[in-house]
Amino acid sequence: MINLVYMQNLVREALNEDIGFLDITHLIIDENLTGIGYFLAKEDFILCGTSIAEMVFKELDQTIAVTFSKKDGMPVKKGERFGKVKGCLRNILTAERVALNFLQRLSGIATVTEKISSKARRYGIKILDTRKTTPLLRALEKYAVRMGGGFNHRFSLTDGVLIKDNHIAIIGVKESVRRAKLIRSALVKIAVEVKNIQELKEALEAGAEHILLDNMTPEEIKDALLFKKEGVSFEISGGINIENIDNYLIEGIDYISLGFITHSAKSIDISLEIEV
Amino acid sequence: MINLVYMQNLVREALNEDIGFLDITHLIIDENLTGIGYFLAKEDFILCGTSIAEMVFKELDQTIAVTFSKKDGMPVKKGERFGKVKGCLRNILTAERVALNFLQRLSGIATVTEKISSKARRYGIKILDTRKTTPLLRALEKYAVRMGGGFNHRFSLTDGVLIKDNHIAIIGVKESVRRAKLIRSALVKIAVEVKNIQELKEALEAGAEHILLDNMTPEEIKDALLFKKEGVSFEISGGINIENIDNYLIEGIDYISLGFITHSAKSIDISLEIEV
Amino acid sequence: MINLVYMQNLVREALNEDIGFLDITHLIIDENLTGIGYFLAKEDFILCGTSIAEMVFKELDQTIAVTFSKKDGMPVKKGERFGKVKGCLRNILTAERVALNFLQRLSGIATVTEKISSKARRYGIKILDTRKTTPLLRALEKYAVRMGGGFNHRFSLTDGVLIKDNHIAIIGVKESVRRAKLIRSALVKIAVEVKNIQELKEALEAGAEHILLDNMTPEEIKDALLFKKEGVSFEISGGINIENIDNYLIEGIDYISLGFITHSAKSIDISLEIEV
Amino acid sequence: MINLVYMQNLVREALNEDIGFLDITHLIIDENLTGIGYFLAKEDFILCGTSIAEMVFKELDQTIAVTFSKKDGMPVKKGERFGKVKGCLRNILTAERVALNFLQRLSGIATVTEKISSKARRYGIKILDTRKTTPLLRALEKYAVRMGGGFNHRFSLTDGVLIKDNHIAIIGVKESVRRAKLIRSALVKIAVEVKNIQELKEALEAGAEHILLDNMTPEEIKDALLFKKEGVSFEISGGINIENIDNYLIEGIDYISLGFITHSAKSIDISLEIEV
Amino acid sequence: MINLVYMQNLVREALNEDIGFLDITHLIIDENLTGIGYFLAKEDFILCGTSIAEMVFKELDQTIAVTFSKKDGMPVKKGERFGKVKGCLRNILTAERVALNFLQRLSGIATVTEKISSKARRYGIKILDTRKTTPLLRALEKYAVRMGGGFNHRFSLTDGVLIKDNHIAIIGVKESVRRAKLIRSALVKIAVEVKNIQELKEALEAGAEHILLDNMTPEEIKDALLFKKEGVSFEISGGINIENIDNYLIEGIDYISLGFITHSAKSIDISLEIEV
Amino acid sequence: MINLVYMQNLVREALNEDIGFLDITHLIIDENLTGIGYFLAKEDFILCGTSIAEMVFKELDQTIAVTFSKKDGMPVKKGERFGKVKGCLRNILTAERVALNFLQRLSGIATVTEKISSKARRYGIKILDTRKTTPLLRALEKYAVRMGGGFNHRFSLTDGVLIKDNHIAIIGVKESVRRAKLIRSALVKIAVEVKNIQELKEALEAGAEHILLDNMTPEEIKDALLFKKEGVSFEISGGINIENIDNYLIEGIDYISLGFITHSAKSIDISLEIEV
Repeated sequence: MINLVYMQNLVREALNEDIGFLDITHLIIDENLTGIGYFLAKEDFILCGTSIAEMVFKELDQTIAVTFSKKDGMPVKKGERFGKVKGCLRNILTAERVALNFLQRLSGIATVTEKISSKARRYGIKILDTRKTTPLLRALEKYAVRMGGGFNHRFSLTDGVLIKDNHIAIIGVKESVRRAKLIRSALVKIAVEVKNIQELKEALEAGAEHILLDNMTPEEIKDALLFKKEGVSFEISGGINIENIDNYLIEGIDYISLGFITHSAKSIDISLEIEV
Repeated sequence: MINLVYMQNLVREALNEDIGFLDITHLIIDENLTGIGYFLAKEDFILCGTSIAEMVFKELDQTIAVTFSKKDGMPVKKGERFGKVKGCLRNILTAERVALNFLQRLSGIATVTEKISSKARRYGIKILDTRKTTPLLRALEKYAVRMGGGFNHRFSLTDGVLIKDNHIAIIGVKESVRRAKLIRSALVKIAVEVKNIQELKEALEAGAEHILLDNMTPEEIKDALLFKKEGVSFEISGGINIENIDNYLIEGIDYISLGFITHSAKSIDISLEIEV
Repeated sequence: MINLVYMQNLVREALNEDIGFLDITHLIIDENLTGIGYFLAKEDFILCGTSIAEMVFKELDQTIAVTFSKKDGMPVKKGERFGKVKGCLRNILTAERVALNFLQRLSGIATVTEKISSKARRYGIKILDTRKTTPLLRALEKYAVRMGGGFNHRFSLTDGVLIKDNHIAIIGVKESVRRAKLIRSALVKIAVEVKNIQELKEALEAGAEHILLDNMTPEEIKDALLFKKEGVSFEISGGINIENIDNYLIEGIDYISLGFITHSAKSIDISLEIEV
Repeated sequence: MINLVYMQNLVREALNEDIGFLDITHLIIDENLTGIGYFLAKEDFILCGTSIAEMVFKELDQTIAVTFSKKDGMPVKKGERFGKVKGCLRNILTAERVALNFLQRLSGIATVTEKISSKARRYGIKILDTRKTTPLLRALEKYAVRMGGGFNHRFSLTDGVLIKDNHIAIIGVKESVRRAKLIRSALVKIAVEVKNIQELKEALEAGAEHILLDNMTPEEIKDALLFKKEGVSFEISGGINIENIDNYLIEGIDYISLGFITHSAKSIDISLEIEV
Repeated sequence: MINLVYMQNLVREALNEDIGFLDITHLIIDENLTGIGYFLAKEDFILCGTSIAEMVFKELDQTIAVTFSKKDGMPVKKGERFGKVKGCLRNILTAERVALNFLQRLSGIATVTEKISSKARRYGIKILDTRKTTPLLRALEKYAVRMGGGFNHRFSLTDGVLIKDNHIAIIGVKESVRRAKLIRSALVKIAVEVKNIQELKEALEAGAEHILLDNMTPEEIKDALLFKKEGVSFEISGGINIENIDNYLIEGIDYISLGFITHSAKSIDISLEIEV
Repeated sequence: MINLVYMQNLVREALNEDIGFLDITHLIIDENLTGIGYFLAKEDFILCGTSIAEMVFKELDQTIAVTFSKKDGMPVKKGERFGKVKGCLRNILTAERVALNFLQRLSGIATVTEKISSKARRYGIKILDTRKTTPLLRALEKYAVRMGGGFNHRFSLTDGVLIKDNHIAIIGVKESVRRAKLIRSALVKIAVEVKNIQELKEALEAGAEHILLDNMTPEEIKDALLFKKEGVSFEISGGINIENIDNYLIEGIDYISLGFITHSAKSIDISLEIEV
């Protein structure tokens, strides 16, 4: 689903961070004792992170068996046991926290994204993430957005030209687009973030292929949509949250991008319950 | 304040993640253009992350000058310009997002921690973090907790023996503590997580040096405090949130540990405004 | 120009590879001896790699001064001394080979690219690179293509959807494009590689935004161009080399992509001449 | 054959570079679809790189089976299917380019080396590579030279003392050799690069154990050979290419070292053809 | 037993260091030849390092089988064959040195530690290691101390507050302890290194939870013990060696910490004998 | 002196290991306090490691100034203050232990090597190290051997062919040398370890260029020397220690190789004394 090589590095580094030199406490458990741990949902949520949670246990101990009864993207109910871990108890206990940390965070992102994207879908609008992700976890967090029914904006500064307010402040809309055309890679679009109709018109004229209407009111957005051209997608962002989003579900809009679905998603409450 | 070598690695990897192969868009800005960017607060918060934000810009371009008018741990008001970045505009724009991602997250943690720790302090209670931190960002997130007036629990599984419900389920309180004494390092304490008075009594008898009362009601906590011994610290956790915390500010308690201050802190809204 | 963090890692690893444990031979030179080395062109070429060559010397010894009289992208004549290195001779000799290895390879790519792109430019055609680059050197090699007047195709599998022969063999043109629309990121185009008019028609109908005509003869290409639509760019590739390229410079084509400019470029002959 | 730990790192980094965050396009293929891909030769060549090509697929997906009908060092004919890859099509398509990039480059080196070394062998002359290799790929490229019937010169600056023109310019032949004797490791030889008979005589007198005749004409080389001593090997290099090499196949010469076999080898045309 | 992720990194880097580009010599052995190598004790010792020795062989070649007849911490007699390695001879010979380097060093530490700890145990005294370990091998060396019957002091500067002579020289005992209380993590103790009775008294009064009597004579130590308080552990160190340790086995002392058991342990003589 | 890139990596990893998440104790020192620390010799020794010790402090804090009054390889007397560190006290205290760990170990190696090499030099014999070095510290430890007047054997398996007892057990002396000639790199010698006169004769006949007489008595060594040939160096090893080495200082021998100078060197007692 995502770059496996990157995931494995991440898992190794995360285990290293959490274990330090050794898990002193795990020494109190007999080396050969085996058992089962069940993943238990403490609230309703959209599941995400099963593969990386499995990799955490496997990286520490290949003999541990990890199985989930649900797939990423599926809803889990409060009280449900949606997965289990079987094997050496010492190692299960050592890996537990890291596995849960991934699972709780990614499920949190998928859950909030799903809440919004399911609404937006009815209007033909796609929910986009942003680059406001946790440093070093971007690939995973953008995967969680997809599992919640959302779509991905740029992964990195390489995969798209996005002319923002600060670029425009420096060289203007027209010159920005002109230069972008001279340097952009073959398969990426030129997007322009505009804050008013004037900039919008300039951007379209200059040849922008994607428009980001920044911080506009629903009324301003409707005005802006009058200028929409074939082949140019329109995205809105800024000041939109879970409370007021209904006001922004305006036909004609292609995308709504939201930073909070990655940077402020609430972690899901999940525990691992051991049975010996 | 924290391990500088680790911070530098983190900064390099975070820039690598965000830039990818190159920042295509920054090519539209003239190479020699310089300017200033101001950090602007869009809401009230406790500042945290100035050093790492500075390192982000410096790592990309040593000639960029970064200054903050406030230090980590100090309050910033909505509308305040609390720092500035001066130098090559191309590089400022490339580094902006990564620097903000760190600053917004860490300030979010410091802000929520301060809200709670300032209350708890009046009762002689210290707010503790947990190991429910973002993979690979633990040192930074625990630093943010300190900047918010909180204190740190274990950094890794190496620096403390903490016997939890799952250990007890496997070998019982008494045997757990007995074994822990046989293997623990010289400067770390033996802590036991107990869920009722019976386990508490066993733990104290066995020689626990720190007690974690897990998921108890305020009444149960008060009962438990009757057993408190000289030299043994008491911590509570489980089911405590920003709404109900007042009920848990009970004299005699030494620590309250809270996962949400790290795993679910809301990101602070901060922007960088360029002036050419 | 490209990700500086990546470049620095590369330089460190390249020096590590070449030095091994130590440069035994450099021990024969007095530690304090300083001198100058001149970069000498042994043939005509387009210069590329000055920044990374400089970083190689600086990484080993910050006190070495490196200056070039030409910038990347500029032509250098046989016999020209186009740069110099000044400082500790021991360290200059140790770093020499690695610096030259980068400079010779990247200048080789820029040189062959320029030869072709300057021709193609007259027909409004852009020369594109491919993903047939040297493992671990892609960012640099694609930079060299730009310095030779070429343009970049995908940097990685993240920044563009490119449906190739093998994808089509598995699920067909139409279904490929349909699915691509469901998953693609917001700023990347959907490109389809087609080998005949039939596939071309299907691709356009399905909504492809970029067409790659693979292994077609000039006649077939001209036929294909009759189907060109507003907003869809056309690229050709396959079987085109420096000898026959004139036949492929057909008006209406937007891009020609060429693997050999990166995977088979001849290294440029450059030497470093020391004067004590 | 070569350091496996290094190969595995290389493979991981190369996959990381090519995939980026994820292979968007591969998402259009059904997750469970399996198939076979055949390696097809588009020209005659000497095969090299089968192990690393296999590692590329295996690193991404352990369940993929890779088999080659020829071994490294063996000739492959145009049109021949010389290997196959069986397993999950998604992952085969994702890994394809990286595997081919290694295979095409290494086979290119083996092929050109074999062309020359098979000639030279008749004169008892061994073809040597140089340190003019691709940064970070040296171990692999020098392995390809061996598979083409060539031999290896120094791998790094650690495994041999080689006094070159620049060292001689600084402290002279005699002093260079004298100092080299004082510091060299026990199992490495002292080699001196000389550009005329005068330097050759000095080098032999001083105790050089290996002589590199640099940029000499065939006549000068023949003169130089008159001074050859028991136990001292003679190598020639400079200005020798595939067209004029016959003039340099002079009896008495032990080695000819050639930079172009690594830095300018033409990549071999190989494709992977999928059958579902 | 210790962080497995860290061990695997270590093994990879150690093999990389020892192999370099390739093991030239191993090429003389037929690729398919298999055989057995026996670990042979050349002297009496306490075994330590079997897991990491096994990982060395496995990392290079998963098909090699490694078995030990003794476990870490058990005594081995001179002349005993205590383990064997079975598989591809080429790879066994390549990995041999690295595996032995770990085994000989760790067994050396376990052996000297056991010699002392078995004595000390009779007086209820535990032998502690220090941070005077080999850079990058700390987790392993502290594991070897445990296998020799010793105990671990701080693993890193994170897991304990230890106020040493230099801290005291700067801000005094009292102020040091006062500040330490304000910042220490929840589960770590505050330890103070004192060099006389005056400092000892100050430290205890200020609330030190662990005392390190530094460089005191047996008489001074006995005096110091008169001040011992319930719940405060006493450690001695400085000037204690294998010859004079009997004088320091004083009842009431909890710990003796010794740098030489890690930094100056004699390597154990072990060889690997191949039988084809 | 040695690969600086490698040294910097080592320093970073060593600091990371020792600091962990943060140096809790250093927080008790005021952030702005500066002072001086003096390196004090607690015994006589040969100094080694000044560059890496300096790098440790500089890596943590570039503003710390480190100076040594003696160079690597020079003798230091007990009680001498041979260097000083000036700057931020917090950071000096944090880096102290890592810097000392390198300095004490490397000086230990240089000291024992010097003791032996100064004796051996009178007989025209060079002392060699082995590959029995600490994993990950080989470059540094072999540098310390040179600073003690010793010489280096192979750095890695790449830089020399050494046919040992186990190779001979498998394919015999003659065949080993024959094959080695077919594959060895141009600048490395073929060495053979022999255990009796019979093997010695075979090795010389087959063309060995370096002989290692393994585990022979002084008498056997003298017999072996009778077979010495021009251009072939003789090395002895096995069973030689600091007590019996005088018996092995036999004229005609070129090298004595000793494992204990690296694997069992006693650490030198050095402290850092702070003056505020």
